[in-house]
Amino acid sequence: MSEQLENLNRLPLRDDLRGLTPYGAPQLDVPILLNVNENTHGLPEHVRRAIVAEVESAVGGLNRYPDREFTQLREKLARYLGHGLVPENIWAGNGSNEVLQQILQAFGGPGRTAMSFPPTYSMYPLLASGTGTAYVTGTREADFSLTPESAAAQIRAQAPNIIILCTPNNPTGTALGLDVIEAAYEAGEASNAIVVVDEAYAEFSHADTPSALQLLPGRERLIISRTMSKAFALAGARIGYLAAAPQIADALRLVRLPYHLSAITQATANAALTHADALLSNVEDIKGQRDRIVRELTDLGLDPAPSDANFVLFGGMENPRAVWEGLLEAGVLVRDIGIEGHLRVTAGTEAETDTFLTVLRSLLPA
Amino acid sequence: MSEQLENLNRLPLRDDLRGLTPYGAPQLDVPILLNVNENTHGLPEHVRRAIVAEVESAVGGLNRYPDREFTQLREKLARYLGHGLVPENIWAGNGSNEVLQQILQAFGGPGRTAMSFPPTYSMYPLLASGTGTAYVTGTREADFSLTPESAAAQIRAQAPNIIILCTPNNPTGTALGLDVIEAAYEAGEASNAIVVVDEAYAEFSHADTPSALQLLPGRERLIISRTMSKAFALAGARIGYLAAAPQIADALRLVRLPYHLSAITQATANAALTHADALLSNVEDIKGQRDRIVRELTDLGLDPAPSDANFVLFGGMENPRAVWEGLLEAGVLVRDIGIEGHLRVTAGTEAETDTFLTVLRSLLPA
Repeated sequence: MSEQLENLNRLPLRDDLRGLTPYGAPQLDVPILLNVNENTHGLPEHVRRAIVAEVESAVGGLNRYPDREFTQLREKLARYLGHGLVPENIWAGNGSNEVLQQILQAFGGPGRTAMSFPPTYSMYPLLASGTGTAYVTGTREADFSLTPESAAAQIRAQAPNIIILCTPNNPTGTALGLDVIEAAYEAGEASNAIVVVDEAYAEFSHADTPSALQLLPGRERLIISRTMSKAFALAGARIGYLAAAPQIADALRLVRLPYHLSAITQATANAALTHADALLSNVEDIKGQRDRIVRELTDLGLDPAPSDANFVLFGGMENPRAVWEGLLEAGVLVRDIGIEGHLRVTAGTEAETDTFLTVLRSLLPA
Repeated sequence: MSEQLENLNRLPLRDDLRGLTPYGAPQLDVPILLNVNENTHGLPEHVRRAIVAEVESAVGGLNRYPDREFTQLREKLARYLGHGLVPENIWAGNGSNEVLQQILQAFGGPGRTAMSFPPTYSMYPLLASGTGTAYVTGTREADFSLTPESAAAQIRAQAPNIIILCTPNNPTGTALGLDVIEAAYEAGEASNAIVVVDEAYAEFSHADTPSALQLLPGRERLIISRTMSKAFALAGARIGYLAAAPQIADALRLVRLPYHLSAITQATANAALTHADALLSNVEDIKGQRDRIVRELTDLGLDPAPSDANFVLFGGMENPRAVWEGLLEAGVLVRDIGIEGHLRVTAGTEAETDTFLTVLRSLLPA
C-alpha cells in the first residue's frame, strides 16, 4: 500500500468511502478535447465582454453576502425557459450536481432510495451515496431505449422515493419520449416519488424531441433539471438550475447552504442569459456536427446510438481500446465510459470533427 | 396553515426537515448594516481592478471545466498562511460552510456524532443535520470561556467523532487558548476524533492570540478552517478553505462534487490573495474599531465580551429588544443572536462605529 493511502486509511473515514477513488475524467493536455462534452465553440467575444462588465459591477459589493434568493437570476432563467414559468418555479446551484445533491438531501437520505436506469450519468450513485440514499437501478433495452410500460413496471416493483431520468441520456445520447416520463410519474405516485428529469443536454435535442417542461403543470412531484455548462458554454462557471412547483424550491431552501450562489456566479449567469440567442446559435452548429458524426460513423460501418445531445456513443469497433489510443496519439481525446465495446465522442467544431473522423477512419480496417 | 406550507407538506420531505424554516439573517434595507459580520470597508479600488482583470483572463476558458484541483489557489493559500504549509495541506470550497459540510460527509454521517460548545456558530447543528450526523453539545463557563480541563472531560464523556471549536468564537468573539485545542485533541484520541478549529475570524485576533495553525505538525486529525469572507472582504465570492495533513484533503476529494470551485471563483480568490497586504491593512483599522467598541460599551456600563473577532457581543441592557429597535429606527442594524439579554454588533468603519455608539448612548438610561 502506498504511504498516501496508508495515511488516508488511518483517518476515521466513513466506512463506505474506504477504498474509493475520487470521481473525475483524466485531465490530459491534448489539442482536441472531445471527452467531457464541453462546448468547444467557447463564448463569443461580445458575450465574454458582457460577463466581465457584469462581474465588474458586482465586484464593488463583494464584501457583502450575495442575494440569497438570486432574484434576478431566477427571473432570467424563468424567462429563458418559457412555458409560463415564473421565478418561484426556479432554483439554482453551483452546477446541476449541487442541485441534484440538494434534491437528494431534501427527499432522500437514510432509509430512502433513488432509482435510475443505467447506463446513465455516473454521478447519480455517487450523489446518492454522499447523501446516505440507497441507489437502485432499472434496466433498458439493448439499444438503450426505455418504453413507458417497462419504466412503469420497474418503478412499481421498486417503489423508489426518487426517480432520476436523464434525457437526452448521458452517456448514450438517447432521448426519452414524454410518454415515458408521464408513465414514470404515474407509477411513482404509489411511493409519492419525486421524479427528476435531468435535461442537461436538452438544448441540443432535435426539433421534434420535446422538453419535459411542458409536463410541469399539475405535477408537483416533477423536477426538470438543467445546466448552463453545455449549451451556454459555461462549464467553468458552475451553474445548474431546475424548474418545478414553487414548493420544491421551498423544500430545497431547507437544505441549501446559506448564500450558496456567489455574487460573481450570479453576475456571470445573468450576463450569459442576456445573450442566450448568440449562444444558442452555436448550439445549432454543434447539432449539425453531431448529426454528421452519426451519419459518417454509420457510413463507416460503426454503430452510433441516435443522439439528441452534443455527443455520440458508438460501438461496432473490433478493438475500441486501440481506437481510443490511436485517437489520443493523434491528439484527439475521446471517452471510454465503461460500456463494453463503445466509445463516446463530443461534437465539437467543424474542424475538430474533421480531424476526429479522419483519424478514426485511418484506425479502422479498410 | 398557509397554502404555501400546505403545498410543502404534501411533498415527500425528509421527516427531520418538516416544520423547519430556512437559515438566514433578515436581509433588510438599512443604511448601516452591522448584523452579519461583513467587512464594511469593502475592497480597495486597485484590488477590485485586479479581480476584474483576473476574471477577464479566465472568461475565455469558461466553456471548459475548471481546474478540479485549483492548483494555483492552493499554492497561494499555502503561501498566505505560512507556518511551513504546502499546497498539499490546503483544501477549499464555496464558503467555509461547504468545507465543513464536506468534512461532515467524510467523517460524520449516520451513526456518528459531531460536538461543539454553544453558544457558537449556529450553522454547525444544521450542517450536522444535513449530513445525517448527530449533534451533541458541551457547555462553557458563564463568561463563554472554556478551560482545557473542562473541554477534555466533556469530550471524553461524549466520545464524539468530530469536534468543532470556533475561535474566535461566533457569536461571542472570545478566543480559545491553544492549550484548550491541545487538550481537546488529546481527549479526542480515544474516539479517533477529527478536531476542526474554525478560525473564520482569525485575522482580527489580537497580536498575542496565536493561530492553531502552529499545532498542525504531528496532528493528522486536526483541521484549521478559514474563510476569505471576513478579513479579505469577499463574503459575496464564497471562498472558504482549510489547512490540515494532506490525507485530510484526500478524504475530502472522495466527497466533493466534481469541479466544485468555479474558474471565476478561483480567479477572484487568486487576485485577492495577490493583494493580501492591502486587505490586511483594513483589518488593522477594523480591530481598532472593535477595541474601541469594547472600551466605550464598558464605559457606558454595559457588559461586552472580550473580542478577538470583528464583532462584539454585549449584555447589560435593561431592554435589549428596545435597544435593537431603537438602533434600527436610526438606520443601524445589529443582530439579536438569541442569547438572552445580549446583542451582537459588527465593527465597521470609524463613521459607522460613531453612529452606532451615538445612537446606543441615546437609547440607554442617563
